[in-house]
Amino acid sequence: MRVAWSGIVRGISAPVLFVTAFTAVVAALNAAHAASLLPAWVPAMPAIAIEPVQLTSIALSLLLVFRTNASYSRWDEGRRSFGSITTVSRDIARQAFAWFRPDDGHNRRRLGRWLVALGRSTMVHLREEHKMEDELKYVLEPQEVEAVLSSVHAPSFCLQMITWIIRHAGLPQELVIRMDENVSRLTDAVSACERILNTPIPLSYTRHTARFLMAWLVCLPFCLWPYCGPAMIPIAALIAFVLLGIEEIGVYIEEPFSILALEKLVNKLENIINAMLHEWQNLDELSRTA
Amino acid sequence: MRVAWSGIVRGISAPVLFVTAFTAVVAALNAAHAASLLPAWVPAMPAIAIEPVQLTSIALSLLLVFRTNASYSRWDEGRRSFGSITTVSRDIARQAFAWFRPDDGHNRRRLGRWLVALGRSTMVHLREEHKMEDELKYVLEPQEVEAVLSSVHAPSFCLQMITWIIRHAGLPQELVIRMDENVSRLTDAVSACERILNTPIPLSYTRHTARFLMAWLVCLPFCLWPYCGPAMIPIAALIAFVLLGIEEIGVYIEEPFSILALEKLVNKLENIINAMLHEWQNLDELSRTA
Amino acid sequence: MRVAWSGIVRGISAPVLFVTAFTAVVAALNAAHAASLLPAWVPAMPAIAIEPVQLTSIALSLLLVFRTNASYSRWDEGRRSFGSITTVSRDIARQAFAWFRPDDGHNRRRLGRWLVALGRSTMVHLREEHKMEDELKYVLEPQEVEAVLSSVHAPSFCLQMITWIIRHAGLPQELVIRMDENVSRLTDAVSACERILNTPIPLSYTRHTARFLMAWLVCLPFCLWPYCGPAMIPIAALIAFVLLGIEEIGVYIEEPFSILALEKLVNKLENIINAMLHEWQNLDELSRTA
Amino acid sequence: MRVAWSGIVRGISAPVLFVTAFTAVVAALNAAHAASLLPAWVPAMPAIAIEPVQLTSIALSLLLVFRTNASYSRWDEGRRSFGSITTVSRDIARQAFAWFRPDDGHNRRRLGRWLVALGRSTMVHLREEHKMEDELKYVLEPQEVEAVLSSVHAPSFCLQMITWIIRHAGLPQELVIRMDENVSRLTDAVSACERILNTPIPLSYTRHTARFLMAWLVCLPFCLWPYCGPAMIPIAALIAFVLLGIEEIGVYIEEPFSILALEKLVNKLENIINAMLHEWQNLDELSRTA
Amino acid sequence: MRVAWSGIVRGISAPVLFVTAFTAVVAALNAAHAASLLPAWVPAMPAIAIEPVQLTSIALSLLLVFRTNASYSRWDEGRRSFGSITTVSRDIARQAFAWFRPDDGHNRRRLGRWLVALGRSTMVHLREEHKMEDELKYVLEPQEVEAVLSSVHAPSFCLQMITWIIRHAGLPQELVIRMDENVSRLTDAVSACERILNTPIPLSYTRHTARFLMAWLVCLPFCLWPYCGPAMIPIAALIAFVLLGIEEIGVYIEEPFSILALEKLVNKLENIINAMLHEWQNLDELSRTA
Repeated sequence: MRVAWSGIVRGISAPVLFVTAFTAVVAALNAAHAASLLPAWVPAMPAIAIEPVQLTSIALSLLLVFRTNASYSRWDEGRRSFGSITTVSRDIARQAFAWFRPDDGHNRRRLGRWLVALGRSTMVHLREEHKMEDELKYVLEPQEVEAVLSSVHAPSFCLQMITWIIRHAGLPQELVIRMDENVSRLTDAVSACERILNTPIPLSYTRHTARFLMAWLVCLPFCLWPYCGPAMIPIAALIAFVLLGIEEIGVYIEEPFSILALEKLVNKLENIINAMLHEWQNLDELSRTA
Repeated sequence: MRVAWSGIVRGISAPVLFVTAFTAVVAALNAAHAASLLPAWVPAMPAIAIEPVQLTSIALSLLLVFRTNASYSRWDEGRRSFGSITTVSRDIARQAFAWFRPDDGHNRRRLGRWLVALGRSTMVHLREEHKMEDELKYVLEPQEVEAVLSSVHAPSFCLQMITWIIRHAGLPQELVIRMDENVSRLTDAVSACERILNTPIPLSYTRHTARFLMAWLVCLPFCLWPYCGPAMIPIAALIAFVLLGIEEIGVYIEEPFSILALEKLVNKLENIINAMLHEWQNLDELSRTA
Repeated sequence: MRVAWSGIVRGISAPVLFVTAFTAVVAALNAAHAASLLPAWVPAMPAIAIEPVQLTSIALSLLLVFRTNASYSRWDEGRRSFGSITTVSRDIARQAFAWFRPDDGHNRRRLGRWLVALGRSTMVHLREEHKMEDELKYVLEPQEVEAVLSSVHAPSFCLQMITWIIRHAGLPQELVIRMDENVSRLTDAVSACERILNTPIPLSYTRHTARFLMAWLVCLPFCLWPYCGPAMIPIAALIAFVLLGIEEIGVYIEEPFSILALEKLVNKLENIINAMLHEWQNLDELSRTA
Repeated sequence: MRVAWSGIVRGISAPVLFVTAFTAVVAALNAAHAASLLPAWVPAMPAIAIEPVQLTSIALSLLLVFRTNASYSRWDEGRRSFGSITTVSRDIARQAFAWFRPDDGHNRRRLGRWLVALGRSTMVHLREEHKMEDELKYVLEPQEVEAVLSSVHAPSFCLQMITWIIRHAGLPQELVIRMDENVSRLTDAVSACERILNTPIPLSYTRHTARFLMAWLVCLPFCLWPYCGPAMIPIAALIAFVLLGIEEIGVYIEEPFSILALEKLVNKLENIINAMLHEWQNLDELSRTA
Repeated sequence: MRVAWSGIVRGISAPVLFVTAFTAVVAALNAAHAASLLPAWVPAMPAIAIEPVQLTSIALSLLLVFRTNASYSRWDEGRRSFGSITTVSRDIARQAFAWFRPDDGHNRRRLGRWLVALGRSTMVHLREEHKMEDELKYVLEPQEVEAVLSSVHAPSFCLQMITWIIRHAGLPQELVIRMDENVSRLTDAVSACERILNTPIPLSYTRHTARFLMAWLVCLPFCLWPYCGPAMIPIAALIAFVLLGIEEIGVYIEEPFSILALEKLVNKLENIINAMLHEWQNLDELSRTA
């Protein structure tokens, strides 16, 4: 998780300051008018009764929470889907390392590195900050990197390569099929990540909520003056901070792949697969002695 | 996503204007009465206490949000189901391109184009704006297009054709079965899309919400006058805009297939399948050199 | 969807009228008392403060919405489960028509008609308005109809017959198994429909909500008089209409099979299966020419 | 469903009476004080403003509804899981009766009775009111009953026996596997029932809600006196009845297996399996004549 | 469940005391000011109108409940996932004990102990309080314990060992595959547990809620004084207790593995597997006599 609370605070500082300043201006004009400091032709600030604001505060709260809920679902599904890539990759490695011919270290290693390449290339696919070549050059052979780079859709290419390796490892048909079920789950997981990336929450919804919230906050000082006087400046600031904060959290977690620690997941996958490549021989010994 | 916020704004402009005008008339009559401008026989506008309006505002807000929630679920499921068609098609292509006999380019190409045809014909099925012939003529052979056009249910016909191709590609029984599991998932995805299209949210629910909202908005000016005076005109307009906007968003996203970018998804599927047809040979080379 | 909004309106007209009449009586007594028209020994109507009513309005709204939500989930699951019967039947037909021996028209037709019979007999099972014999006599052979009628559980009998046909169609074992997975999904879908039919929302919940709502509505006129005067009669009517309407919608959609257009779904299934029986030969030709 | 509304009413009668009596005492003291009937040294009852009570009523309502929601989910899942045991058992019977050798009536009957025994022994496992021996003695052979009684975990024993019968019925390997998938689903369903039974909603949550509700109800009379006077006695009683009723419903449906009609489900399973044992011969004839 | 309500009470005692003390200070200053006991230069405590506090109480309640909901989902999924490990292990034991060669007691016992080792090592993995060696030394052979301890990821190592045993037990290919499906489910369950452990609810969300709640509680005494006077001290304490209690429950159940009774689940698994190892011979006899 890379976005701490301080990121949220920074993200909403501008609108919170605006609302606070606006409230201060309204408060100053109201106070000046009450003290008859203003020229006669300046009319009094309008005062809105608080009742209509109360009527809409339920709808506003529900909208904000619904929006944050929808974002949280996306975040949670993003976490699950990318996690599923690493989980299923580990499962394929488990199968391969037990089922490939004992002396077929070549295919074991090859499958291992393509599984890691799938995780890395999907990560690059989901974010803009990484470079495909940098991520793959310590994983694959040079001509393999080149093939991935020249492909139209890198994760699909890795999936095809994995299918290919499984198909030609000399396994009985039934085991090929069993492993292919896992490859299909990989395809599903990659596609789910792409879907989350490419389909945001309907824009009309997001924007309607944002506009409603801003309009509500701008109405607030006209309601609060009769109740709070100048104390409404810190109060409005606090309310703005809280509600804009909820909205901002929704905005942040809506795009899960920019905040999830994908590198950590991919590195862990790489470590486990490498360990499995070594531990496989312990296993063999263990099963003979025990 | 083709419906921007401006579409929502346009969609609710008429009822918002109506509520605003109605509120203005009530305000004018009230003001005229207060200034004794009206003939004596015209009675004062009734004034509704705001308490009963407050009592129902929770139920109204919950109804609106529940309705939007239900629409959002439909939208999300529509996105998933149509996305699933393209995902599973890619997965079938992946299997076929690794498992069909290396020299069987004919069946590879044939399966590829029928998978694309399935996506396109389902899209036509789900929307009224497309013409089946235009969508398929650059994908299938002429006599194939004709066969699809003369079938009762185009996506079912494509699914049968796909089953047929897989069955007769000379694969071992186990691989046929494995691919057939994916074809069943395609059937499920197509059916899910049809279900969403054909079963709207229970009409009684949708209509009750709409009527309740309108009645509530029409009661509003009678409540607000004692609290806000003429300022109630912009306030009522704002409240109407916000609440009708929530309802309108629910109406829009209830029919996901008219707003989702289905063409983009189908085009992407076509590109990836075509790329896989070419990259297949790279794969073969790569697996021999490495 | 067979229950339009007008059905809801008719369903709640009696309780709404009752609440309205009761409110009118309270209003009349209050007015008479204020005008000192009543004998001295008649006490004034009690007046309840609106605050305790407000305290419970949130719980009431949440209860109503939870109840409607639970009903909506049932309705949605009912739609999915019955839809699943037709979807999976189509999928079984797809498999059979591609895998049965080309000259085995007998078993193709037989399987087709038993799939339709399954849909129809499940529909009869879920509703009381249909007669099993009428639904099946144009689908099955006379002695088959008789066998279904004399069975203990008609859908189970159809499922067994389908299993039987698949088992004896001379398919390789693997394909039998693949089709049997779909038959299991049919069993699940039929059972899900039965579960929804036989297990209503816990009665204690439904009834508590209904009693709470009625008590709340009966308290209302005693609260509203000081705020609204005689205007409380239409206001109470409107509130009763809205809240009882929400509850009534919950009652209606709680039993999905009486409002879903099951006949339409079954007829569509029949049409598509019949079409597949004919189109199968086009497919064969097409695959030879292309 | 064995708990009717009257059960709920009985369950909450004690706390509702307590709240009512407490409110009556507060009302009496307040009235006595107002009429100066009390000695001078008795202080007036404290009066709490209603505003802080209103502030917490939203949190209270949400807590109550969340708790009822969580209980309803458990109830629904319990219903599904136990229902799944009967559904999958029917499905296994369907497979066995079509696939076992036509003359192998012995294994058909044996499998049938162990499937029923699984349902019955799981029911005994989930409730305390049944005796294992009584439930099984009309289903299994005497020495079989004894074996179940002496096993550590009766449902697991039945599942093992079912696996054993399937394994030794002389079926081809593929069909054994297909049936075993269903046996795994049975294991899942039994485990889901056990999980629901053994893992209640976190106790801290349940108790916090109950204490909060009681504290809130005890504060109520101090708030209501200025608004309602002696009328607060029936009002407090009604509010207590409604809110304690919601909580009580949550308590009741939290343990689904004590209120679901498990016997009915198990009896229905037994009837259908017995019918399938007889109808199997009709099927055979039918398939030969048609 | 190891966290009782008393744990929650202890957890929130510090902040509740703080809020109470703070409220008492505000009350004392207000009372002193009213009685003119303070020097003239000490200004009156500011009084915040209760209306803005009411406006935000809905958002606060929704935030708190959403947070608790999200924690409850995590708790429930944690329970399911860890439960799934034991369930699927039992299912694998069921398969192995029916399918392994009757005289192959060696592999039966070996698989049994590695299944238990998987459960135990995952438990150690998910909590910090256990020592791996202590948990495994009564389950596995010494050299097996050593192999697990020296592996990079203990549960993965156990899963590989299980795969290995199944692969080399001399089963027909089809049964190996069927059991491998269950091993994949084990991998999924272990990964789900790890995901829940490693991905908390977005920190920005959790912290924003906590800060909002504290700010709201600190504003409270300034609002309550005009309504409640010194009675606000117990009232504020009660409100703080209730709302902080809700938040604390959310914090506790967010990390399910520290409160779920994992040992009990693992011990139960061990007992059932051991019982199955013995009962297997009863089964054999039973199936021969019956």
